[in-house]
Amino acid sequence: MRKALTYVQEHRAKILAELQTLLRIPSISTFPENQADMRQAAQWLANKLTSLGLEHVNIKPTTGHPVVYADWLHAGADAPTLLIYGHYDVQPVDPLDEWRTPPFEPTIKGDELFCRGATDDKGQLYVHIAAVEAFLKTTGQLPLNIKFMLEGEEEIGSLSLGDFVLEHQDLLKADAAVISDSHIIDPQTPVLVAGVRGLVYMEVFMRGSRQDLHSGTYGGVVENPLNAMVRVLASLHDDQGRVTIPGFYDTVRELTPAERELLNKSPVTPETILAETGAPALWGETGYTVVEQRGVRPTLDVHGIKGGFIGAGQKTVIPAAASAKVSMRLVPDQDPAKIARLFTEHIHRISPKTMEVRVETLARAESAVVDITAPAIAAAAKAYERGFGRRPIYLREGGTLPVVSMIHKTLNAPVVMMGFGLPDDNLHAPNEKFHLPNFYRGIETAIQYYHIFGRK
Amino acid sequence: MRKALTYVQEHRAKILAELQTLLRIPSISTFPENQADMRQAAQWLANKLTSLGLEHVNIKPTTGHPVVYADWLHAGADAPTLLIYGHYDVQPVDPLDEWRTPPFEPTIKGDELFCRGATDDKGQLYVHIAAVEAFLKTTGQLPLNIKFMLEGEEEIGSLSLGDFVLEHQDLLKADAAVISDSHIIDPQTPVLVAGVRGLVYMEVFMRGSRQDLHSGTYGGVVENPLNAMVRVLASLHDDQGRVTIPGFYDTVRELTPAERELLNKSPVTPETILAETGAPALWGETGYTVVEQRGVRPTLDVHGIKGGFIGAGQKTVIPAAASAKVSMRLVPDQDPAKIARLFTEHIHRISPKTMEVRVETLARAESAVVDITAPAIAAAAKAYERGFGRRPIYLREGGTLPVVSMIHKTLNAPVVMMGFGLPDDNLHAPNEKFHLPNFYRGIETAIQYYHIFGRK
Repeated sequence: MRKALTYVQEHRAKILAELQTLLRIPSISTFPENQADMRQAAQWLANKLTSLGLEHVNIKPTTGHPVVYADWLHAGADAPTLLIYGHYDVQPVDPLDEWRTPPFEPTIKGDELFCRGATDDKGQLYVHIAAVEAFLKTTGQLPLNIKFMLEGEEEIGSLSLGDFVLEHQDLLKADAAVISDSHIIDPQTPVLVAGVRGLVYMEVFMRGSRQDLHSGTYGGVVENPLNAMVRVLASLHDDQGRVTIPGFYDTVRELTPAERELLNKSPVTPETILAETGAPALWGETGYTVVEQRGVRPTLDVHGIKGGFIGAGQKTVIPAAASAKVSMRLVPDQDPAKIARLFTEHIHRISPKTMEVRVETLARAESAVVDITAPAIAAAAKAYERGFGRRPIYLREGGTLPVVSMIHKTLNAPVVMMGFGLPDDNLHAPNEKFHLPNFYRGIETAIQYYHIFGRK
Repeated sequence: MRKALTYVQEHRAKILAELQTLLRIPSISTFPENQADMRQAAQWLANKLTSLGLEHVNIKPTTGHPVVYADWLHAGADAPTLLIYGHYDVQPVDPLDEWRTPPFEPTIKGDELFCRGATDDKGQLYVHIAAVEAFLKTTGQLPLNIKFMLEGEEEIGSLSLGDFVLEHQDLLKADAAVISDSHIIDPQTPVLVAGVRGLVYMEVFMRGSRQDLHSGTYGGVVENPLNAMVRVLASLHDDQGRVTIPGFYDTVRELTPAERELLNKSPVTPETILAETGAPALWGETGYTVVEQRGVRPTLDVHGIKGGFIGAGQKTVIPAAASAKVSMRLVPDQDPAKIARLFTEHIHRISPKTMEVRVETLARAESAVVDITAPAIAAAAKAYERGFGRRPIYLREGGTLPVVSMIHKTLNAPVVMMGFGLPDDNLHAPNEKFHLPNFYRGIETAIQYYHIFGRK
């Protein structure tokens, strides 16, 4: 292990340069025009893993973007097997004009590496590739068996991964899985994620007339789909910040007082969030702390409203149609399929009869809660302590990692969510970055983790 | 006059071909990239009027797009002077993919001429150019003095025209003005517009954070500007379809029972509007007929909401900022400046403290009511009767023509709004068209009008 740590110290420039090559590939999974980039990113990873000596390297097709698989299974029959998950797809980059550097040109400023995907998730998945490289290039051995599963659809809801895991459950069989796709509190305070929220992503379509109308001629007699849409969307929250869809909270698991107390030991406070975001004031469901609001309570957000005119200047149009993208973050034990159905029924119920309404489900993912007493998690806590000099805190993550519940359910393996991102890394936003000291400390922590978990 | 009418009969192809040349110029006033097209359209009109023998032809600069002026003042000292207004600018063409023919390639299908600007207003202003041509190319004389004032900013609220009219009131002095920029009921039923609504066009900006946030990490604690925006916009109407801005209705002039009765003689019914638009059901302020709702009642419409993600697929973003374009159609005696102020104050009052809010006024225009007993209007009624074989009905138009109140107030001249468009001409929408029989009948009606009004 010492040799592996030394390797990382001595090869930082090479490791960073290789990550930058991967980052330059604009692998945006949601856009058809980036299909070739997606294939290129998968191929790059497969080549890299082959060059390290991993075996069974394979770009496995799915109904969507492929999964890159590779393994190294020579640690001995009694050594545990660790499944390493990461995703090589990234979010779109708009609004482009808010980027201070080209989004797919990795740019280093001080300790920060700016690029789309820098932390979510190419940089964090590369932590594990570099850790594996450090062992194999020095000792030629790993302290445990490793399987890589790198997907290309995380940013579009891991559409094919559930079927993939189900189909390849023997191949993927492992004693634990590790995912580095989350963030810690600050460069000194590591976090083990104790749960993730689920998600349903919906799109609501309304049509009010055959085609666009002039607001002078028809304003006041033919309803404007944008007027109707804002009314429907606004009604989805009450004045306590609660979602008004009937049945939405029916299966929400309330925390025990002990769980609440543990969760609220987090250093996250209204003040830290205000400082991180620059928001004038916070918002949220009455009766819950900020840690609870974003960790254990479900939420609903409008992500975009299409229709009419948003260019410079003015156009007095009543658009024929409008649509809105809306997602809901879900918590145990909300069932995404059921919430999607409740949402759809509710939208139809409350929409005015002036509109033809259609609702589509774009993505669904289940929430998951981790058993923090599992040995795989305890080993991660120790690894963090060695890598960062401090024991991690346990947090419920507000984001969604569909793979967690898939691995829990299908492979029956504990999932270690060991992240190295920071809250201000601008995930899904312009100027995404990765804090480079976290990158190197992450590789060292991963090396420690393989070592500690391997010895069990 | 007979010679003029015969000229039109014999030169339909030439007249139509020249209109098509004008229509090909994409003179969209709101877009900076169409500046050169705006100048080209003004120059084309100036050249055309010069070629007909008009005098003082001049492309007069304003603070925005220029006004094309020209006159012919040789009808004799006792002949009346008619100011002909039209506008050579057009609306943007998006959504482009809903056009069945290229928006700036005039395309004839049966009796319809499809093109942006076909009816609003190039086709209708060309009615008057063709009528003047028919007199001057045959008798070399007009039965009355003519002044053309063709502006380039009608679609952006006639921003410079008020100052222009004020500055040139001696030049523009006239006994009446005629505007063909409105629509009739159907090809057999002409309409004289008895009033137009005013307008204020506003834009509301909200910012909730320094930059875009991930809805997993911050959903439920930092308010989403789109969530806040839909709440604020939705609250601008009550469930009776009334605008909720305090003071909004304070100066609205209610109709007398006699005015209401006259107005409701219109053949416009809920059924005709449903047929024209394909709306599933109508909407509007409780207690008013459809004719009243769109003619004498003020309205509020959302025209577009910017912010977040509206591409294909999904992005779980909480946008840093959102903005919305909102216009209000105004009626006598609402003051646009006061309504803009009330709107701005109200938005600030009701916006949550989670948002930094800014409100801008993009355009303002006053409403106007026409004295239908004026001789200039009576002459127009007779002209319609000869051109269409039927006396016109008098309607309050829901749209806005800022020039009407400018001419009323500054030049103290009655304004004849003699339109030849149809309700299904798709103004401001894809597939705008002009019904060609109305074009030719319009030219004949204009010839009749010059003749009748000239003899007074």
